[in-house]
Amino acid sequence: MSGRGNLFAALPPPGAEERFDTLLDHPAARIERIASFGHASPPGFWYDQPGDEWVMLAAGRATLVLEHADGDRETLALAAGDWVFIPAHRRHRVESTSNDAIWLAVHPGKT
Amino acid sequence: MSGRGNLFAALPPPGAEERFDTLLDHPAARIERIASFGHASPPGFWYDQPGDEWVMLAAGRATLVLEHADGDRETLALAAGDWVFIPAHRRHRVESTSNDAIWLAVHPGKT
Repeated sequence: MSGRGNLFAALPPPGAEERFDTLLDHPAARIERIASFGHASPPGFWYDQPGDEWVMLAAGRATLVLEHADGDRETLALAAGDWVFIPAHRRHRVESTSNDAIWLAVHPGKT
Repeated sequence: MSGRGNLFAALPPPGAEERFDTLLDHPAARIERIASFGHASPPGFWYDQPGDEWVMLAAGRATLVLEHADGDRETLALAAGDWVFIPAHRRHRVESTSNDAIWLAVHPGKT
C-alpha cells in the first residue's frame, strides 16, 4: 500500500483468480480494488457482510443481484461508473462479470 | 442522494461552475463526485483540510500540487484512474483540469 497509484495499473493477467488490493487502510474506512475478470460468485453463494459497502464498477460490465428483506431479488446490470450502496447484511451476489471488470469498493467503518 | 447512481450521469453542462455531489453521507465516511470541467484553484489558494482525503481522477486530466511539510512542492500530472491520499493539513491545490475532469473523493471520518 502506498499514498498513490492508478486503479488500472498492475492488474492481474486475464484469467487469473479474482484479486483484491487494499488501496487505503484507514481507521475510518477501507478502500479496495477488486479485479474480477470474468469471475462470479459460486452457485448458491450469497455475500452477507457485517458492514456497509459502497461499490462502483470502474470498468467492464457486471450483473449484481440484491436480495431485499422481503426476499425479493433485484438484478442490476452494471456498466462503468455505476455505483451501489449495499447496507450491512443486505444479501447479494455477483452473477457475472466481463473479463475486464474492475470494482472500487469503499467500506466505511472498515468492517 | 440515493442508494445508487452512475458517476458519469447527470453531469453539469460544459463551462458550468465546479460542482460537488454527495454520493454517500455515512457516519464513517463521505463520498463525493467533483465535476471540475476546466476549473482550477484560484491563484495563490491552497486547500488545507482538517481531515484526510482519498481522491481519484475518474475521467480527464488534472494537475495537482502538493506542498510537503518542509515546504517542497510536488506536481502530479494525473490521468484517469490515478488516485492520491492527501493527509489532513497537507496543503494542496489544483493547478489545472481538462474540461472533462471528474473526481471521486472519499473523506474517511467525514471531516
